[in-house]
Amino acid sequence: MNKNSFAEMPPMGWNSYDYYDTTVTEADILENAEYMAKNLSRYGYEYVVVDIQWYAKDAGSRRSEYQYIPFGEVCMDEFGRLVPDETRFPSSAGGAGFGPLAEKIHEMGLKFGIHIMRGIPREAAHRHLPILNSDLPASEVADPSSICRWNPDMYGVKDTPEGQAYYDSIVSMYASWGVDFIKCDDICNVNNTSPTEENAFSRAHEIIMLHEAIMKTGRPIVFSLSPGPALIKYSYFYEKYANMWRITDDFWDEWPLLKNMFERCEQWKDHVDVGCYPDCDMLPVGNLGKGFGKKWKSRFTISEIRTMMVLWCMFGSPLMIGAHLPTLDMGTKTLLTNTDVLSMRSPNLRPKEFYRTEDEAVWYCRDEEENRYYVAIFNISDSVRAVVCDLTDVIGKSLPVRIKNIWTKEVVTTSNLVIHRTIEPHDVCLLEF
Amino acid sequence: MNKNSFAEMPPMGWNSYDYYDTTVTEADILENAEYMAKNLSRYGYEYVVVDIQWYAKDAGSRRSEYQYIPFGEVCMDEFGRLVPDETRFPSSAGGAGFGPLAEKIHEMGLKFGIHIMRGIPREAAHRHLPILNSDLPASEVADPSSICRWNPDMYGVKDTPEGQAYYDSIVSMYASWGVDFIKCDDICNVNNTSPTEENAFSRAHEIIMLHEAIMKTGRPIVFSLSPGPALIKYSYFYEKYANMWRITDDFWDEWPLLKNMFERCEQWKDHVDVGCYPDCDMLPVGNLGKGFGKKWKSRFTISEIRTMMVLWCMFGSPLMIGAHLPTLDMGTKTLLTNTDVLSMRSPNLRPKEFYRTEDEAVWYCRDEEENRYYVAIFNISDSVRAVVCDLTDVIGKSLPVRIKNIWTKEVVTTSNLVIHRTIEPHDVCLLEF
Amino acid sequence: MNKNSFAEMPPMGWNSYDYYDTTVTEADILENAEYMAKNLSRYGYEYVVVDIQWYAKDAGSRRSEYQYIPFGEVCMDEFGRLVPDETRFPSSAGGAGFGPLAEKIHEMGLKFGIHIMRGIPREAAHRHLPILNSDLPASEVADPSSICRWNPDMYGVKDTPEGQAYYDSIVSMYASWGVDFIKCDDICNVNNTSPTEENAFSRAHEIIMLHEAIMKTGRPIVFSLSPGPALIKYSYFYEKYANMWRITDDFWDEWPLLKNMFERCEQWKDHVDVGCYPDCDMLPVGNLGKGFGKKWKSRFTISEIRTMMVLWCMFGSPLMIGAHLPTLDMGTKTLLTNTDVLSMRSPNLRPKEFYRTEDEAVWYCRDEEENRYYVAIFNISDSVRAVVCDLTDVIGKSLPVRIKNIWTKEVVTTSNLVIHRTIEPHDVCLLEF
Amino acid sequence: MNKNSFAEMPPMGWNSYDYYDTTVTEADILENAEYMAKNLSRYGYEYVVVDIQWYAKDAGSRRSEYQYIPFGEVCMDEFGRLVPDETRFPSSAGGAGFGPLAEKIHEMGLKFGIHIMRGIPREAAHRHLPILNSDLPASEVADPSSICRWNPDMYGVKDTPEGQAYYDSIVSMYASWGVDFIKCDDICNVNNTSPTEENAFSRAHEIIMLHEAIMKTGRPIVFSLSPGPALIKYSYFYEKYANMWRITDDFWDEWPLLKNMFERCEQWKDHVDVGCYPDCDMLPVGNLGKGFGKKWKSRFTISEIRTMMVLWCMFGSPLMIGAHLPTLDMGTKTLLTNTDVLSMRSPNLRPKEFYRTEDEAVWYCRDEEENRYYVAIFNISDSVRAVVCDLTDVIGKSLPVRIKNIWTKEVVTTSNLVIHRTIEPHDVCLLEF
Repeated sequence: MNKNSFAEMPPMGWNSYDYYDTTVTEADILENAEYMAKNLSRYGYEYVVVDIQWYAKDAGSRRSEYQYIPFGEVCMDEFGRLVPDETRFPSSAGGAGFGPLAEKIHEMGLKFGIHIMRGIPREAAHRHLPILNSDLPASEVADPSSICRWNPDMYGVKDTPEGQAYYDSIVSMYASWGVDFIKCDDICNVNNTSPTEENAFSRAHEIIMLHEAIMKTGRPIVFSLSPGPALIKYSYFYEKYANMWRITDDFWDEWPLLKNMFERCEQWKDHVDVGCYPDCDMLPVGNLGKGFGKKWKSRFTISEIRTMMVLWCMFGSPLMIGAHLPTLDMGTKTLLTNTDVLSMRSPNLRPKEFYRTEDEAVWYCRDEEENRYYVAIFNISDSVRAVVCDLTDVIGKSLPVRIKNIWTKEVVTTSNLVIHRTIEPHDVCLLEF
Repeated sequence: MNKNSFAEMPPMGWNSYDYYDTTVTEADILENAEYMAKNLSRYGYEYVVVDIQWYAKDAGSRRSEYQYIPFGEVCMDEFGRLVPDETRFPSSAGGAGFGPLAEKIHEMGLKFGIHIMRGIPREAAHRHLPILNSDLPASEVADPSSICRWNPDMYGVKDTPEGQAYYDSIVSMYASWGVDFIKCDDICNVNNTSPTEENAFSRAHEIIMLHEAIMKTGRPIVFSLSPGPALIKYSYFYEKYANMWRITDDFWDEWPLLKNMFERCEQWKDHVDVGCYPDCDMLPVGNLGKGFGKKWKSRFTISEIRTMMVLWCMFGSPLMIGAHLPTLDMGTKTLLTNTDVLSMRSPNLRPKEFYRTEDEAVWYCRDEEENRYYVAIFNISDSVRAVVCDLTDVIGKSLPVRIKNIWTKEVVTTSNLVIHRTIEPHDVCLLEF
Repeated sequence: MNKNSFAEMPPMGWNSYDYYDTTVTEADILENAEYMAKNLSRYGYEYVVVDIQWYAKDAGSRRSEYQYIPFGEVCMDEFGRLVPDETRFPSSAGGAGFGPLAEKIHEMGLKFGIHIMRGIPREAAHRHLPILNSDLPASEVADPSSICRWNPDMYGVKDTPEGQAYYDSIVSMYASWGVDFIKCDDICNVNNTSPTEENAFSRAHEIIMLHEAIMKTGRPIVFSLSPGPALIKYSYFYEKYANMWRITDDFWDEWPLLKNMFERCEQWKDHVDVGCYPDCDMLPVGNLGKGFGKKWKSRFTISEIRTMMVLWCMFGSPLMIGAHLPTLDMGTKTLLTNTDVLSMRSPNLRPKEFYRTEDEAVWYCRDEEENRYYVAIFNISDSVRAVVCDLTDVIGKSLPVRIKNIWTKEVVTTSNLVIHRTIEPHDVCLLEF
Repeated sequence: MNKNSFAEMPPMGWNSYDYYDTTVTEADILENAEYMAKNLSRYGYEYVVVDIQWYAKDAGSRRSEYQYIPFGEVCMDEFGRLVPDETRFPSSAGGAGFGPLAEKIHEMGLKFGIHIMRGIPREAAHRHLPILNSDLPASEVADPSSICRWNPDMYGVKDTPEGQAYYDSIVSMYASWGVDFIKCDDICNVNNTSPTEENAFSRAHEIIMLHEAIMKTGRPIVFSLSPGPALIKYSYFYEKYANMWRITDDFWDEWPLLKNMFERCEQWKDHVDVGCYPDCDMLPVGNLGKGFGKKWKSRFTISEIRTMMVLWCMFGSPLMIGAHLPTLDMGTKTLLTNTDVLSMRSPNLRPKEFYRTEDEAVWYCRDEEENRYYVAIFNISDSVRAVVCDLTDVIGKSLPVRIKNIWTKEVVTTSNLVIHRTIEPHDVCLLEF
């Protein structure tokens, strides 16, 4: 079994975090999954991911003070393994875990994913709980000096056979539930204050342990690492053990963050490969933030969503929608499901950046099988721009050629590859040759 | 009450760590205290300090694996305050804490000190114990992201009124026991991996909180900060809130560490003042290390102990003996109790470094009241050296002058201040003019 | 000869930079010196310092492009020693150098100082000029990889006997001219981009070489190091070889810079000693900036000048006026010459900081001989403040005591050391007990 | 013209540095070129590169003191452009520059390359020489604060039109000489002391200026950047403007350096593309070091050379031989010319690392056109190892398959992809499937 075969294209799906934060329920998951099955799955969206703290009893109950309540009650089995909070996930009652929910998702033709925090529950260590298939208790597996800086739930796990036994115990349980996707948090870049490479990468052994636990299950579970920024120096490491790794801090609906992704994509574009996806993070579109106590409509304009989708797809990032799906507006949905744009996602298309300035960026890629080029001309400035771009050296075709505008579907034939286009601020012109 | 009046001279005493590590008992303390009362107190040694983990049930029981057993059992009262392990400290039974032991120490004419770890017990937080004189439990006072990197017992305390209430609750208990000296650990330099100034100083608020808790007791408890190296940029801060602060990592009986102290003393010498003592750490002499499971005799030679005593005293460091006192050899004892050397400790003598090379260092200081100079000529090289040192500009006296050799008590009169001395490796010639 | 005897009090005087930049002439120097002799010398001001590029032919002629013209013509003797530009300093003609000007300054009862750049002229190296009393030419003395990052005139000097010969050759020439003060630039902190300690201190050997060259002259030339910030870790080094060292970058007439000095003074206050002065930089008062092509009146208010003078004096900084003296306004002059304030400058007064917040700072010092205390209550906030300050523990006197307000000369007797004062923003209340 | 078309495969050739250092002559160049034409060119070796200081009059004459004599005489034309030293390069007399030598090299069917230092000669700036096609002299083009830390010849060039004019003036001259390859030094990583990313990349504008100067000539001059390590974060930048960039410091014949290249190749392997070659530096084989005054035979064993060639070729590095070619031993020559190994160099083969430990590394790549795999099993430990390596998931072929040992040419058929091989220390087993 080769982990690269678990995801031959950049994964697509939906994640509960941007809308629900720590408060998502089984009903919420099903409601969004149903929307996906009906409206998005035909375009390739398939993963439904339950994000952070599905195991926390009081999640979201003290929002003004804490995102994550310290020393709050967590749901755990007798082996120190976190299980869903039955109040929020009723079908998990009686030790069923996420099995029944995963099954429903599977019946819709979708795949089921969960978020986990790196490590073992602090409570399990303090209570000296036994580890499944191990002679040592949780207190010997937990590393008391390894904590997450922003979430109080876990201790890191020692790089020992007993530590591996713990990770095996949770991942085999997830596999038995039917989990298809694990997003592990606090593991890609573990240092959010002084992120020296050494510090940020210090828990690399836990990435390997989780990878090995997944391989032992025999189930092709996609393995996603969070949060970023990943360290490009260690790209070979992420490629070896994971399917996705975040190349940015949390991404939200603010233009400066989106503009900044051009630099990150520039740096990482040569590292996209089958089963190996640098991850630009969720698409914060539609309705957002209910669980954060301040529901809002995405601040991204249609132009910006267009820019985001073209960049994410041409680059080859996974696409995880961060919206409340049932109330998704039509304009956004149209952009999320443009088949031309989505077709650029193949890791075989190996994108190039033609140039980038403070105001413009031009990327292109080539579909060799179809002998087709895509060229994206981004206006990343704050005003309308008349862009002139000489593609003579880029497009290796004899003239004249037919150019198709992906948005308008308009096709023209040209014998001159110097392209003139007027582009709105934060917008993109996407052409096919 | 001014904290500088708590220690008008650099504190002198004994500390249990270098010999007993985490395993010291009441009997051990008393045995060493008796030796001190009988043999050392007349020279100024007075503090008897119980070092780390007097509250830990199984301290020292898994020495080959751990210095500090993670998630081991600790002795705590109902307010989450650590108390002595009754097995090791029988007189503490029945809620007496260190009161009876302190009383015995006091009766010997000595002072009583304890070591504490910064913070609140992790167990208190996980068990949501109440805080004395506070409406909030330990779980609200503990900062779940603030831990010690090398000891697993505590969480840091938040900078809130409730956090102050916790520190008040422990320090007032210590005062009620009769504690005269608190050595707080994991607070002076809290980062032992990548010690940027920002990280290393991040818990400064807990220094202030402990200082304030001490001032509230009305008891003149000397406040000592550990471990080092303290950050010289913040010397003014330590001076304001503490009586002693470590300027080095743990100091042991190895010549390179001792040689290195010349550089540290050079840097800190202007910061010694009444009530304010940069601290060179314990004197690792005599028998050492029983609690570490490998008892040994200090590797320091008599020459090296002489060098250490002269440097520590001229500099103005506290003097905390790290030996097993009852078995202290006579040679060492003689050096620890040389009254000429000890008299240089006064913060009014303001030492100067005349010069320092890889091979030699010359320090001097002036006792203005007595119009007396001390000059120390150190041979810090590894071979015998014939040192020539022109003190003409240093000694502001009209010739001839009388020079006394502090070790031999020999006095000569000279009309030439160019000193010629042959000095053994790692040894020091100490002269009085 | 002991370099500490060259300056038994923090030096006071005037420096041409803040008003003239690189353009100062002999006439300018004399005009300012005359003002000083007549109006300021009785208060202790004595040094008249010719600042940067007195050797440059075209200094100031391309102000809009360059402060320091690269590869511009410099005046040099046959040994590669820079000499004054005769056009600007006519009395230097015929090889007299600054001799005649120094003589005139001395005749006024003042002392004469010059600014130099660390190193040897690049031109001298490229032209292979001989070095006085050395067999090797300038090209062998210059270190081609050691340059100043902001001034293009010099190469650093190698740590060799020939390098010492070069420094000896210039300093003996300065001594022969009658120079009393050398401010050497690009030598205290030599790295203005990524100032790691190692980089910033990399030219320490040139400090030693200049010190030794000065000692060889037998002339008590005060040695001042620039620019800052000096590295507090190396304070012992500056103390050993220099009389003054800058603890800040260039200081100008902006409140945030002045407010920032409270932190720097806090850090360095224990390092002021006879002959050893951490330097807060020039006092940018009165008329400024003519040579920068944009003459302006100091932006400091009278309150701010008062604050600056009290801080600089209580701390023990040198006082170098940066104004155009002949047009100095009376208000500023009054503050520069307050004898009570100036009397606090003695290095024996050893100031303390009582406390400092974002809004207030209280410093005090004690004149032991006179059994007198000075207390300065600074309002460093931006609004009027009613300050309450309990000096009971600070002032070791039996009540009642007489308090004198230094500005108003008003004296009151009080039996309560809790001081209540209303202070204007950026102002200071200075009391004597 | 697209710079990527200048080098469709990683460049191969010879460079004078490793054997001649700064002392190479025209006769030396021709002697080595003749060997190459006769023995190596049929395998693809074609570039003959004259390395550092061909313009220096006294190069190598003070070897015990300096590698590069500071302020030594350089050969320059009237526009401040360095030209070959006629003593060493007689055919360059009369202003012919490297034209005649390049012509001879071309006549041998080879290509001609030169090394340059980033910048403009310091001498040109100090002498205010005119710049061709510019109104401003060299003193206005040179940046006096931009120097090379290890070579004293040049100043960096300002990012101005006049700076571009200077670079245009030298590159057009090189093109007129017939230069096919420019290795620019002190430009890829310009900081050899504290290589922060910011510092090391600070002269990026000079890379762009040289690229643009090359493009203007219309001549396909391969552009190579030195020294390393290049910063992987800026890989997209090097890809845009250069054909080769060093990913390591100077590489010499020491096993630890070679072992270290496994990590560097791991990091950079995804950045090899047509016209874009991360560069592992010269192959230090055969006789070396005559110009360094201590001629020696390469310390690399045959095993190590084999390992180096397999890694460099599978990775896709340029191959520049650093030996004295006329005396090249047969064993080394055989390894440099193995056609199977050389065939792996195509940037289309996209190598992968299967795994790497402290002791072993396994790399593989696939030639899609031929449906052929290469697998390299490296023993990077210091003792013989029996390696077992399961290639089932790597080799996507139905069994049985034929395996060829590249060194022995032996072919076996296997139905089991678990490979067992015994490999000598520092050696490699290379298989073709």
